[in-house]
Amino acid sequence: MITVDRESQESLPEQVCDALLRLISSKWQDRDQLPSVRQLAASSGVSAWTINEAYRRLVARGVVTSRPGAGYFVARSSVRKATATPSSAARAVVQPVNAVSFVRNAVDPASHVVPAGTGFFPRSWIEDAIPVSVVSKVLRDPVMSTPAPAHGLLDFRHQIAAKLSLAGIGASIDQVVSTFGVTHAIQLICQHMLKPGDRVVIEDPSYMVQQAQLQAMGVELLAVQRRADGPDLNQLEDIARQHKPRLVFTQSTLHNPMGCTSSPANCYSLLTLAEKYEFHIVEDDTFGDLAPASTLRLASLDGFRRVFYVGSFTKVLSPAVRIGFVASPLADVESLLEKKVLGVLTGSALQEAIVSQMLKSGAYSAHVSSLRRRLTKAHLASRKALATVGVEFDTAVFDGLYLWGALPDSVDMEELLRHAFHQGILLTKGGIFSPTGQFEHHLRFNVAFGTDKCLLALLCQHIPSPESG
Amino acid sequence: MITVDRESQESLPEQVCDALLRLISSKWQDRDQLPSVRQLAASSGVSAWTINEAYRRLVARGVVTSRPGAGYFVARSSVRKATATPSSAARAVVQPVNAVSFVRNAVDPASHVVPAGTGFFPRSWIEDAIPVSVVSKVLRDPVMSTPAPAHGLLDFRHQIAAKLSLAGIGASIDQVVSTFGVTHAIQLICQHMLKPGDRVVIEDPSYMVQQAQLQAMGVELLAVQRRADGPDLNQLEDIARQHKPRLVFTQSTLHNPMGCTSSPANCYSLLTLAEKYEFHIVEDDTFGDLAPASTLRLASLDGFRRVFYVGSFTKVLSPAVRIGFVASPLADVESLLEKKVLGVLTGSALQEAIVSQMLKSGAYSAHVSSLRRRLTKAHLASRKALATVGVEFDTAVFDGLYLWGALPDSVDMEELLRHAFHQGILLTKGGIFSPTGQFEHHLRFNVAFGTDKCLLALLCQHIPSPESG
Repeated sequence: MITVDRESQESLPEQVCDALLRLISSKWQDRDQLPSVRQLAASSGVSAWTINEAYRRLVARGVVTSRPGAGYFVARSSVRKATATPSSAARAVVQPVNAVSFVRNAVDPASHVVPAGTGFFPRSWIEDAIPVSVVSKVLRDPVMSTPAPAHGLLDFRHQIAAKLSLAGIGASIDQVVSTFGVTHAIQLICQHMLKPGDRVVIEDPSYMVQQAQLQAMGVELLAVQRRADGPDLNQLEDIARQHKPRLVFTQSTLHNPMGCTSSPANCYSLLTLAEKYEFHIVEDDTFGDLAPASTLRLASLDGFRRVFYVGSFTKVLSPAVRIGFVASPLADVESLLEKKVLGVLTGSALQEAIVSQMLKSGAYSAHVSSLRRRLTKAHLASRKALATVGVEFDTAVFDGLYLWGALPDSVDMEELLRHAFHQGILLTKGGIFSPTGQFEHHLRFNVAFGTDKCLLALLCQHIPSPESG
Repeated sequence: MITVDRESQESLPEQVCDALLRLISSKWQDRDQLPSVRQLAASSGVSAWTINEAYRRLVARGVVTSRPGAGYFVARSSVRKATATPSSAARAVVQPVNAVSFVRNAVDPASHVVPAGTGFFPRSWIEDAIPVSVVSKVLRDPVMSTPAPAHGLLDFRHQIAAKLSLAGIGASIDQVVSTFGVTHAIQLICQHMLKPGDRVVIEDPSYMVQQAQLQAMGVELLAVQRRADGPDLNQLEDIARQHKPRLVFTQSTLHNPMGCTSSPANCYSLLTLAEKYEFHIVEDDTFGDLAPASTLRLASLDGFRRVFYVGSFTKVLSPAVRIGFVASPLADVESLLEKKVLGVLTGSALQEAIVSQMLKSGAYSAHVSSLRRRLTKAHLASRKALATVGVEFDTAVFDGLYLWGALPDSVDMEELLRHAFHQGILLTKGGIFSPTGQFEHHLRFNVAFGTDKCLLALLCQHIPSPESG
């Protein structure tokens, strides 16, 4: 009647539960009596304890009722309704056409086989990042029985302030506000700083989700070309003089998608423009932990006069943990907290305590060092492999998660992307990063997957070899 | 030089780390050599392993450098900057004046001693709610190395659909979207359904954070009196006829702050009005798990034609875990997902997997049963104790987290609240729940703290005894 798999990750009682649920929804009727514990244990070859435990769980879930002395019975119309509900769960994944559909595919492991264009590390690089010992310690902590303050756990903010200090950024714990990741941090800053019709400068190319976020808020987007050493400041000054933007977004470090890092001179001049034209800057440092320790940030020069600095642990630690923060000019903190309370009430003390503990114990920085060693190797190997099949690289980047490659103009990009989609290879087309329709022949590669055989075969098939051109 | 406390919850290496950090920031200079491992172990009475481990952590954090053969040294201007940053961390907690400041006090355990008016369970009621075994299982799961789909983990949505089915609510997994709690769920619904100037009906009294959320969106709020059996439907029909509201918010089950539950007849008639006047309903079921199993929801009658149903695990499981969901008409799901992606990118797979596992194993429903037993006892005891000092109760409520009590008109409420604040007793004044300025002499009590001696003494002092009146 029931068979179990002793090699499975599922415990035996859970397997028995699942099997019984299938029988209840397919075969057994309301109020039918279930087999006795002893009977079912004998027929399925598991212990009476296992069956007892499975029945206990089904009773707890209301699917089965227990009548003392009489046995176990299927509860009245319990599971049937759930399983009978028509579900379109199998709705086909669609080929991404915009930022939101791209993200929805990228964050859904069921949508692809080769995550060649996503922004996440391979499982084997991060699966041991959070030790069980860290989490058990957190679970025993009184912090688990109380909410996190809207500001974030005190311990979390202390650790962030210490971490920023090592990067040369002087922020007090009062300037740090925890968030559910970078997207959330940017949402709060936008809600605080912008109203519909305001003008905002973004880099071209730049992170597509940020563009979509800003568009959804009804602000006017102005694009400034991103160069290897930072945003084009001549162009930015023209824009600033003419349009008086309120906010300028930049990724100074390991820019997404280009991978480059702003030069100190560019950072300095950008801040001079901010003072002159009175705009604020959002410095999105999502990838900062993967950069060399000597990297200079806008926030460390600026001292939180005009810079909102945004960071995250989701990339490096685990995409299953959504946690980031904003470090902000002190005068803006109260308003950011109000936006946070009205949007999500408060943060997850569980997640904040895990990150604090990881930072405190040194486990975080050990993990980052190991990731960086892997990335260095992957950059060399992936760059070489992709160049061999005909991908061209503008700038020399050896850090971070991305390679920003150009394909020859003769490649039919739509066809390439369609083939990739059908083969389960998630590619990220360059055009999605450009508010001005550039970079249609670029692709952003996740450096960890640049040597994937399926990806290389696909590219080979679509890129004409040099002698044939 | 260093003393450790072997009874402390902090591990020995952590205590040594902390002590060294204090010395570095107060006494030692840049590039000073630290004592040798053996020397420090001997002088502080701990093992060489402990000192080694502490040094390793400080090296990992960049505070100390190790020179092979020479020893350990204070890193150049490492910690000093962090500790020298002036901090206004000790900024005084302020007496709450509105929804946001009330929430900020309520979610900050440092702001009060007696949480008499908060919406959280006492530590001892929930500290064992999430077993370590559940979390270690989740950490070993492949789900920890990938993001959660924007929709939510499949397993999470399956468990929610099964749970709703047991409450008589037929939702497919496609209709369920995970959120960072109820506030986040409501934010998504509002962003999807409302634009500035739209009209929205809320109950009077009702949850103050929702009111503040709606006000921040620039919608026009219309209040309908809440009765023990549901919203006043005559008044609602007048409003609907005259103002054509787009959304109506209600807590049909265990209403916050009143504690009452809508009658089936009220639910039915409310849906009839929704059809007639073409508004949608947001059914906020934050406290639903604490209600008797027979409780009828609007969503189960409506079948997701006009009802958005919102639920949470934060209340019952742990305030340290921020997780909830919305079950929505199928046609609205895509837009809710877009708002979610643009606001927070995606959910926390860690939190979703913990809740799935709790639901699946029956641990969740066992925990809920134990909470309900405690609540039943607390209702009887707290009601009696509060009545003895002069608090009056309008309706008979025996479930849920709240008691909604009235104080005699002669009580100076401002003075009472000021005294409470100074004694660290967090009280929630009734007026904060009323968009029309009613209920100034009501208080919402957390039923678990209704017998607290400090609270009762304070009330005694402010409420005139009957014979003196």
